[in-house]
Amino acid sequence: MPSQPSKTLERFPNPNPERDYVVHMDMPEFTCLCPLTGQPDFAHFMLDFIPDQHNVELKSLKLYLWSFRDEGAFHEAMSNRIADDLIQLIQPRYLRLLGRWYVRGGITTDLLIEHRQSGWENSDILQQLPPVHWAQHQPGY
Amino acid sequence: MPSQPSKTLERFPNPNPERDYVVHMDMPEFTCLCPLTGQPDFAHFMLDFIPDQHNVELKSLKLYLWSFRDEGAFHEAMSNRIADDLIQLIQPRYLRLLGRWYVRGGITTDLLIEHRQSGWENSDILQQLPPVHWAQHQPGY
Amino acid sequence: MPSQPSKTLERFPNPNPERDYVVHMDMPEFTCLCPLTGQPDFAHFMLDFIPDQHNVELKSLKLYLWSFRDEGAFHEAMSNRIADDLIQLIQPRYLRLLGRWYVRGGITTDLLIEHRQSGWENSDILQQLPPVHWAQHQPGY
Amino acid sequence: MPSQPSKTLERFPNPNPERDYVVHMDMPEFTCLCPLTGQPDFAHFMLDFIPDQHNVELKSLKLYLWSFRDEGAFHEAMSNRIADDLIQLIQPRYLRLLGRWYVRGGITTDLLIEHRQSGWENSDILQQLPPVHWAQHQPGY
Amino acid sequence: MPSQPSKTLERFPNPNPERDYVVHMDMPEFTCLCPLTGQPDFAHFMLDFIPDQHNVELKSLKLYLWSFRDEGAFHEAMSNRIADDLIQLIQPRYLRLLGRWYVRGGITTDLLIEHRQSGWENSDILQQLPPVHWAQHQPGY
Amino acid sequence: MPSQPSKTLERFPNPNPERDYVVHMDMPEFTCLCPLTGQPDFAHFMLDFIPDQHNVELKSLKLYLWSFRDEGAFHEAMSNRIADDLIQLIQPRYLRLLGRWYVRGGITTDLLIEHRQSGWENSDILQQLPPVHWAQHQPGY
Amino acid sequence: MPSQPSKTLERFPNPNPERDYVVHMDMPEFTCLCPLTGQPDFAHFMLDFIPDQHNVELKSLKLYLWSFRDEGAFHEAMSNRIADDLIQLIQPRYLRLLGRWYVRGGITTDLLIEHRQSGWENSDILQQLPPVHWAQHQPGY
Amino acid sequence: MPSQPSKTLERFPNPNPERDYVVHMDMPEFTCLCPLTGQPDFAHFMLDFIPDQHNVELKSLKLYLWSFRDEGAFHEAMSNRIADDLIQLIQPRYLRLLGRWYVRGGITTDLLIEHRQSGWENSDILQQLPPVHWAQHQPGY
Amino acid sequence: MPSQPSKTLERFPNPNPERDYVVHMDMPEFTCLCPLTGQPDFAHFMLDFIPDQHNVELKSLKLYLWSFRDEGAFHEAMSNRIADDLIQLIQPRYLRLLGRWYVRGGITTDLLIEHRQSGWENSDILQQLPPVHWAQHQPGY
Amino acid sequence: MPSQPSKTLERFPNPNPERDYVVHMDMPEFTCLCPLTGQPDFAHFMLDFIPDQHNVELKSLKLYLWSFRDEGAFHEAMSNRIADDLIQLIQPRYLRLLGRWYVRGGITTDLLIEHRQSGWENSDILQQLPPVHWAQHQPGY
Repeated sequence: MPSQPSKTLERFPNPNPERDYVVHMDMPEFTCLCPLTGQPDFAHFMLDFIPDQHNVELKSLKLYLWSFRDEGAFHEAMSNRIADDLIQLIQPRYLRLLGRWYVRGGITTDLLIEHRQSGWENSDILQQLPPVHWAQHQPGY
Repeated sequence: MPSQPSKTLERFPNPNPERDYVVHMDMPEFTCLCPLTGQPDFAHFMLDFIPDQHNVELKSLKLYLWSFRDEGAFHEAMSNRIADDLIQLIQPRYLRLLGRWYVRGGITTDLLIEHRQSGWENSDILQQLPPVHWAQHQPGY
Repeated sequence: MPSQPSKTLERFPNPNPERDYVVHMDMPEFTCLCPLTGQPDFAHFMLDFIPDQHNVELKSLKLYLWSFRDEGAFHEAMSNRIADDLIQLIQPRYLRLLGRWYVRGGITTDLLIEHRQSGWENSDILQQLPPVHWAQHQPGY
Repeated sequence: MPSQPSKTLERFPNPNPERDYVVHMDMPEFTCLCPLTGQPDFAHFMLDFIPDQHNVELKSLKLYLWSFRDEGAFHEAMSNRIADDLIQLIQPRYLRLLGRWYVRGGITTDLLIEHRQSGWENSDILQQLPPVHWAQHQPGY
Repeated sequence: MPSQPSKTLERFPNPNPERDYVVHMDMPEFTCLCPLTGQPDFAHFMLDFIPDQHNVELKSLKLYLWSFRDEGAFHEAMSNRIADDLIQLIQPRYLRLLGRWYVRGGITTDLLIEHRQSGWENSDILQQLPPVHWAQHQPGY
Repeated sequence: MPSQPSKTLERFPNPNPERDYVVHMDMPEFTCLCPLTGQPDFAHFMLDFIPDQHNVELKSLKLYLWSFRDEGAFHEAMSNRIADDLIQLIQPRYLRLLGRWYVRGGITTDLLIEHRQSGWENSDILQQLPPVHWAQHQPGY
Repeated sequence: MPSQPSKTLERFPNPNPERDYVVHMDMPEFTCLCPLTGQPDFAHFMLDFIPDQHNVELKSLKLYLWSFRDEGAFHEAMSNRIADDLIQLIQPRYLRLLGRWYVRGGITTDLLIEHRQSGWENSDILQQLPPVHWAQHQPGY
Repeated sequence: MPSQPSKTLERFPNPNPERDYVVHMDMPEFTCLCPLTGQPDFAHFMLDFIPDQHNVELKSLKLYLWSFRDEGAFHEAMSNRIADDLIQLIQPRYLRLLGRWYVRGGITTDLLIEHRQSGWENSDILQQLPPVHWAQHQPGY
Repeated sequence: MPSQPSKTLERFPNPNPERDYVVHMDMPEFTCLCPLTGQPDFAHFMLDFIPDQHNVELKSLKLYLWSFRDEGAFHEAMSNRIADDLIQLIQPRYLRLLGRWYVRGGITTDLLIEHRQSGWENSDILQQLPPVHWAQHQPGY
Repeated sequence: MPSQPSKTLERFPNPNPERDYVVHMDMPEFTCLCPLTGQPDFAHFMLDFIPDQHNVELKSLKLYLWSFRDEGAFHEAMSNRIADDLIQLIQPRYLRLLGRWYVRGGITTDLLIEHRQSGWENSDILQQLPPVHWAQHQPGY
């Protein structure tokens, strides 16, 4: 049976919960609809997290991103929802999500969301996170 | 009815006021008039903010920027006004606005404005703001 | 009396018509209106030409570009019109105009126009023209 | 009435058919479906053409690209179809289309298509086309 | 049934045999065995071709590359075999294969293979092929 | 007798345990199998460590990496296992492992693991570690 | 009446004295005379300041820089004088001036001057100043 | 006696007239006056020539460039005059002069002038001339 | 028995002599002795060839390069000898060898050697050779 | 006995006169005196040649360059003299010398000299010469 889009994110136990390590996921393939006009929107997401007891399963993440293809949402709400769904699923010690949305109305919007588990102290490894890849804007390009 | 320029910025409730997140907006399309000569001025604005209870609506922001097309203002006053109007509208926890004005009289002027909500403590996420894209000047270019 | 926008391009006699030389002009400050929606459009023009008996006067060129600020025109027609007006004014031996228009509808459009004077043979100096500065597109930026 | 996806490309008369000039369009927002698995595919198209009697209208081009959002097609057939539809619409003197498809099965595929009007002689302006922006692959990235 | 490695490359009819167009495929995931020591070898292949009556099917190409995982072969023979198998399968008008093999014995080897269909005249589109991505060697790196 | 893959990592005494120094190892040749589909996975590992009483022997490390060629494992478990095996073997003062896994399902995953010996104070030399070479993602590339 | 060089710098009230914001001005067009030989000297100035109750007026600044065209001064004295005149005029909270002087006697000299208003506490925004653009010297270039 | 500006360019016999060789001179220090407004203009000149019987003396060239400090001239006339004066002085086999003028009215102008001695055949060494360093324009910078 | 240095280069039959293909080998590990002082010299060799009936065997090439470790030779003679030995061994259709020798006496020397088989016509594939990686010298670096 | 500066260049027989090969020598260490002022001048020389019956001996070349340390000469004469001395010594088939002189009087001078042996036909290998490393000038640097 072929794959289907699905809102059901899946998780699996973190094989090494005794240590803080970083998972970095680059997800350039995302499209949804503008809630006002119904026209397609596109975004490139970049995710970093330090898992606690669970990790997100890769294939379910792919199908989850696909599941927004025909739904409308504002940039801010959609980016926060993806962060919230991942946080609820795996309750990570740390999570950072960057959404780089394609230009609309001559304005390009990026969103950066950060989450820390309550009671978790900053780990040294946070100093080694990749720099945030903010869009690099050049007027006229 | 076609779109019209408008000073009326619109806002919508922040879907996730429980967290500090960054909205970065790149706005290379701005023009107004020189208050002394009436000749066109051009600028490229870059905006970063952490919303509190509201966000700025993208289309109204586009129409708002358009609304200065036939008005005259000094670089300093115009840049501060845009910052002030956004601050008044959404009362953000943090806001930073960079205005890169095109060269006049052989001198290129950039303006950087920063605002913090009274009583708001600096968030860790501020450390992840994009570096300010100051104009890169090369003499003779 | 302050400067006013004007369609009247002015020219002056080429001080050295006996030789082929290249004039390169970079004009990043251009805005007009979309003929369908009335909303502002922006473009960055780059001009190269080899004058024959006349050159274009710099200040009149500035005022000429300004004069389109409140007029509507398609990218293709506007770019060709500017080229045509300059060709008619100075009847150059060679002229090349690049118009880099800002992104609209998720699509970025550049236009490149070239003109050679009838009967004029290609000069060696054409091999030294600057490379065309086509916009450099990066998806998601 | 809001915009709708549409296969109906529209054209308008070339304002300057007397000259060869280049139109370059960058279209990073394209998605369709894999004809075998039904899963989303993504591509970034780059178009260059020299119009003859007609140009393609920008908004209809946006809606046309949108219209493939729910259709399945192989990379080769889809890229050629877009080229063919544009060729049939405007019958250009020259057309070049690059499709950069996102990686599938560990393999990244680009397609380059070129068309010349029968009987049209190569114009000097072809030497000034932008270089083809082939994807730049780095192993392990 | 899960996918299996397979030597059976599959092809499908070229949807547009009436024109010369370029297919560029980047294949960084290849490993086989050294025929002398049985130890793993790695390579990154880059393929360009102009199809005639057939194209290579992407999934079968992935399984074909996989099928060499447990076979031993010299760099020269393996690279030529892949080129030969593709040529026999689709009998392209033009084909170019670059194999970038990982360093062995302190020596890095790249192989470049080119094929032209007998009787086929060079097409203009060949001038637009991507430059060969030879490995960039820096001593001590 | 030719070399064979082996899980037996070997170590030798650190010749200079009196000082903190950094060992940096780049290991672009790694392949294993996907535990769900049995298809090949590829990764590029980068290792940095400050040895205590032992170092890892280079040839045994090569054979160890080879030994996973026919085994299935998730990215997270495999990366952590390699780190754990090295930590158990040489009990370093500090160790950092980056695993850059090749793209699967349109998503590229990197893993960064860090270990500090219990009771060991951060050394100044840690400030001179190479920056982590996170994959640089560009959509459509 | 045409513009004339003038030592009279003009100021206007800071429209937003309630906040610390940065004004960055790039001034590549400066020339004066060597006090020993009478020969021309050239410099490129870069200015950053945080205004208090006043800002410097752009046109008067241009005429002020022009006014040194026929005066002789040492690099050190001239750079400090410009800083002093600006400080006296607008009494800024913070001011930084970089003077990059063209090479003389095979030696290139840059001067960096910084001023803080007495009693003014460092603002957070100082951390966002542009990096000082020291000249980048390469021998033989 | 101190140096004085002077229109008198000096020459000395070419020590090796039997061969075609290239002299490349970079002259970033030039200023004159705008003939319309009397305000200062700035330019950066780059010169390449193949001498015939004479070379230009370096110090006289410096004093010559200085001599225009208080004279007004259009960009086109001034650039051509400098080329003409050098051509008359040394009657070179080949000469190329690039004038990069600083931005005025939002427009940046470069001028490229080329001269060949009558009857002189192009030398192979011309293929080794440096590429013309046209100004690199970025809007808003 | 461990490997030994050896002057005996080995060859094997070209598996595909019916086609012209390029073998590119990068060999950064070479050291010999200065014939005058007996001190060590180092070089980085880069080899490209089109085989005819034979290829060079990689391991023997490694041992061959090793064999010069204790021999003295001038840069010119050594580079030519390596080229000659390879030419005699495999009698290639085309061969190019670059020797980049490390700096001695403040002077850096590179040697480029090219060989064509008598009677062999230049193949199209020669146009796709990698550019020669000449050392890039920067004084004082 | 310590080394001494010497005008006596030495040569040795070309070990492979039967082929055209390129010798590239980078010589960043050169100083002489200004013939007018007696002050030190500095230059960076880059040499390429195709030897005929002789090569230049490296150590004598070093001592030869040293020998000009206390001699005065114009840039043009000195550069040509070095080329002439080398040409007379080894009578090469081809020679190219670039002299990059350090800035004097605000003007930077490079000299490029080329020589071909009478009767020698251009060799294919000339197409593989390194590009001339002209100084890259940036005003104000």
